[in-house]
Amino acid sequence: MNGMEVSSLIHQSDSLNSFPLSMNEVEIRLLTKKDDDILKVELVYNEKYKFAKGVHYLEMKKVMDDGVHDFYVVKLKVKDKRLAYVFLITLLDGNKYYFSESGIHNSYDIAHAQFDFFQVSFINKVDLVNIHPVLANRNFYQIFVDRFNKDETNDNPRINIKWGDKVSVNSLAGGTLRGIDEKLDYISSLGVNALYLTPISEANTNHKYDTIDYFKVAKDFGDETDLKNLVEHAHKRNMIILLDGVYNHVSTSFFAFQDVKKNGRKSRYFDWFYIDGDELRDDNYETFGLAKFLPRLNLNNIEVQNYLIEAGVHYVKNFNIDGYRLDVSDEIPHAFWIKFRLALEEVNKDIILLGENWHDAHAYLNDGFKFDSIMNYAFTRDVLDFVAYQKIDVNTFKNRLVMNYFRYKTPVNYNLLNLLSSHDVPRFLSECDGKIDRFLIGYALLYMQIGVPCLYYGDEIGMLGENDPDDRRCFEWDKTKWNVKINETIKRLISVHYLNNLYLMNVSYEVDGEVFKLVRYDDKNCVTLFVNLSSKQKTYTNIGEVVLSNNYENGSLLPDGFFISVR
Amino acid sequence: MNGMEVSSLIHQSDSLNSFPLSMNEVEIRLLTKKDDDILKVELVYNEKYKFAKGVHYLEMKKVMDDGVHDFYVVKLKVKDKRLAYVFLITLLDGNKYYFSESGIHNSYDIAHAQFDFFQVSFINKVDLVNIHPVLANRNFYQIFVDRFNKDETNDNPRINIKWGDKVSVNSLAGGTLRGIDEKLDYISSLGVNALYLTPISEANTNHKYDTIDYFKVAKDFGDETDLKNLVEHAHKRNMIILLDGVYNHVSTSFFAFQDVKKNGRKSRYFDWFYIDGDELRDDNYETFGLAKFLPRLNLNNIEVQNYLIEAGVHYVKNFNIDGYRLDVSDEIPHAFWIKFRLALEEVNKDIILLGENWHDAHAYLNDGFKFDSIMNYAFTRDVLDFVAYQKIDVNTFKNRLVMNYFRYKTPVNYNLLNLLSSHDVPRFLSECDGKIDRFLIGYALLYMQIGVPCLYYGDEIGMLGENDPDDRRCFEWDKTKWNVKINETIKRLISVHYLNNLYLMNVSYEVDGEVFKLVRYDDKNCVTLFVNLSSKQKTYTNIGEVVLSNNYENGSLLPDGFFISVR
Repeated sequence: MNGMEVSSLIHQSDSLNSFPLSMNEVEIRLLTKKDDDILKVELVYNEKYKFAKGVHYLEMKKVMDDGVHDFYVVKLKVKDKRLAYVFLITLLDGNKYYFSESGIHNSYDIAHAQFDFFQVSFINKVDLVNIHPVLANRNFYQIFVDRFNKDETNDNPRINIKWGDKVSVNSLAGGTLRGIDEKLDYISSLGVNALYLTPISEANTNHKYDTIDYFKVAKDFGDETDLKNLVEHAHKRNMIILLDGVYNHVSTSFFAFQDVKKNGRKSRYFDWFYIDGDELRDDNYETFGLAKFLPRLNLNNIEVQNYLIEAGVHYVKNFNIDGYRLDVSDEIPHAFWIKFRLALEEVNKDIILLGENWHDAHAYLNDGFKFDSIMNYAFTRDVLDFVAYQKIDVNTFKNRLVMNYFRYKTPVNYNLLNLLSSHDVPRFLSECDGKIDRFLIGYALLYMQIGVPCLYYGDEIGMLGENDPDDRRCFEWDKTKWNVKINETIKRLISVHYLNNLYLMNVSYEVDGEVFKLVRYDDKNCVTLFVNLSSKQKTYTNIGEVVLSNNYENGSLLPDGFFISVR
Repeated sequence: MNGMEVSSLIHQSDSLNSFPLSMNEVEIRLLTKKDDDILKVELVYNEKYKFAKGVHYLEMKKVMDDGVHDFYVVKLKVKDKRLAYVFLITLLDGNKYYFSESGIHNSYDIAHAQFDFFQVSFINKVDLVNIHPVLANRNFYQIFVDRFNKDETNDNPRINIKWGDKVSVNSLAGGTLRGIDEKLDYISSLGVNALYLTPISEANTNHKYDTIDYFKVAKDFGDETDLKNLVEHAHKRNMIILLDGVYNHVSTSFFAFQDVKKNGRKSRYFDWFYIDGDELRDDNYETFGLAKFLPRLNLNNIEVQNYLIEAGVHYVKNFNIDGYRLDVSDEIPHAFWIKFRLALEEVNKDIILLGENWHDAHAYLNDGFKFDSIMNYAFTRDVLDFVAYQKIDVNTFKNRLVMNYFRYKTPVNYNLLNLLSSHDVPRFLSECDGKIDRFLIGYALLYMQIGVPCLYYGDEIGMLGENDPDDRRCFEWDKTKWNVKINETIKRLISVHYLNNLYLMNVSYEVDGEVFKLVRYDDKNCVTLFVNLSSKQKTYTNIGEVVLSNNYENGSLLPDGFFISVR
């Protein structure tokens, strides 16, 4: 077919390219080859039962490209819950083609398209994938519990380093739930309104990813009352709180593993694990990664599933937490997550489930039956490659952000947890070789990006940290040692973020020469972040300078300290 | 990028292009532009935790094309449950490109690909999408209950036509469950080992799609004992039985609708329906299609969901049926189907759920949490267009079959219910204008196609029938009126089908000039169906002649009556 690359067309009903946004609006996306010889793309549509009798035409807008595909998008208001449609593509040479479920056509018999058109078969409320009502307007703060704050009364004999000393794999520094509770004012003062804590159930290590008892608060961190108080005090400040759900593996001290160790195949818990043989040895059970101290639970076993669902329900029901970050979520069966969500929704219909998926998580997010969100490490990687390592150019950076955006249904993008540092990667300032300007550019991108930003404790004062365990240093409470520029800027960026998911709903990623532009806009207003990492172009900004351009009607929308030019 | 169309590359982890086939085998598919300048495609892979240290290379085979894309496929045996991989594409000009989660690369740093490679994150047994152990070796027979067989004792005063008279929309002819029971020997003699009945719960019409009581067998069709006997007698013959699950809508006589009619918004069932206003009028409730006598149930209401799940469980638990064909399944929430399946699997872990999805059903089939199968009307349409209407040429026909095949994960294709006639479309013989040769070519395609074939009662004796109600005529039990050639050939084709899902597991669709070839093969053996509808080429077959070519080691595998040439 002259003039159009047919093999580049991508569309499918009931997919990330065709979904309802609400009971009366659907979003339709069509992918074509970038810069193909296309004059225009039209949606040819009508209510399903009227389609054969006549159709409407609506031009679709080319909204972005990722360097490979152009993305044509339309948001269509609908009255009936059943929609039929095909695409009409007009080429620059005047030729026209129809694209339907059976492929490309020179002409199309609309009156007899009954089983060939694309469709939204029926809009059902319970199937809507939504911008999460509790999650999407949040600003997160992640805390590694042992290292955030040691309350003065803590005389735990297991503590083996002085607060602030260099940490090793086995250090216990003494941070507690009560320690966090004492610092809620500090956290609030940052502008943060959501906490995510690393695991707090009984376990041996300082990180507590080796659960011994799912139903008990780790003695090292406090007790049930401390957790109750923390949640209550956070909620009083309109702050939500997520715990870390660690269901993929347990400690070798976990009761069921101990029982198998003792009784071998005769243990009623034998099938709770993956064991090769009849007796448990040191080398014949499956683990998380290559870590022998973390035996993998067999989540294909219904008994294990039910046990862990009970553990998940426990903290929601009895401690009123708002949801979970879910450890190693992509190695756990989808079948488990579906049941887990159903059970937790019965306790809290607005439960927040956030997976630790480092890879493309379309299979966990786009249907709404598993997670609301993931830790968006794809974004981390892109910012690292562009800002910290300077491995990719401005076009590749833009292309990657666009590619990630179109991996998910639009509402999902508002729920993604964006982050630059965590307990699992070196701190972003270390990745930037300590260069503060680069660091702040990364954080400006984080807080302007569509989605929910997450700040790792200590990044806001300029803490450094290489890989685990160095990225888990004790928080520095001596203010004289804080980096004031970083601290002030992060706080301002957090206050900028209120523009984000609830106001300037749309995002666009653009490139102008060497300058990257992240644009947030609605029908009337627009704020643009300009990032220039190159010495070649000085039109907008100096190298490494963060600039926000504001055409918001209310000129005071942006906080002080940013260069503002109304464009 | 010279020499390769990057925008045509399609692959995604955890999708229909990357899935486990069993606990130790994964299937990986890569789509490229058809006939692109590609020398070879290699899978570059290793166990996830060994990938950074070294990789293996495995060439992928180009197995089919749909006229737009080439499909490269590899089935890879794995020891570990975690796989990491990227693709290496070598062009004819010698250039090499790597394709990973972040796109196309000129070179690739395998040692640092940790969050960029494609992956099978972990193979979980409960997530496997399987060839259904009960469904996939079946040969179905669909019965429209009122029209199959009237047992002589039936003196139902509602019967309003004589058996065999022309039927109208309101005819009740007197077919019953006992009537079917009496004819199980006849059905078995066809070679059939599975029944699918149109609805049998209490309802007003002859078709019973207007349910009045989900928990009662329709008086017109018999009683609970008749159903029990029928299922028992079918099972004795190793015949399974599916009922029609009609959950999208009910009769206006359904108790809840009547209650709303009486009490308006005060009715506790008001939210069981979609009603615009406070009182129920004739024109303010939603329906199936435009049929006012079929008010649509609100399946977004949890109470309605639970009620219908109970109805679904009822016949599985109390009558031991093997599953359901699910009416209007694509207008019912995914959320409902997930719960429905979970509830039914608790009663029968091998439950068969088969959706009435006329369109691309990837969202219902590829994750394994909703349906095992659908009525594969896409196949019906393709055979109609090629064989009956002659609207498409042999290449388009081949392309459509390939396109449909690659819509689903491989195991799903073995479960699809292929059909040419049903109560919802004109009989295939009528679509062929009564031409028997065309009719038999269609049925040869049906029985050679990958998947589960379904014969609509009466097609096997050459019954005609235009659209509803004419496609629901009374079965002709007078053998002298049967078309003997059709009857004999269909029976032979049914016996050919045993080659299908369990032996010659692989399928290939090919074109040689004007001749279409459907090839079924395994490592050693191969049977080919040749179809020539053109007068231009007489190499293989005469026009309209069905030819099977057999190189099966056991020469007697094919039944008599087919032209067999060992090629």
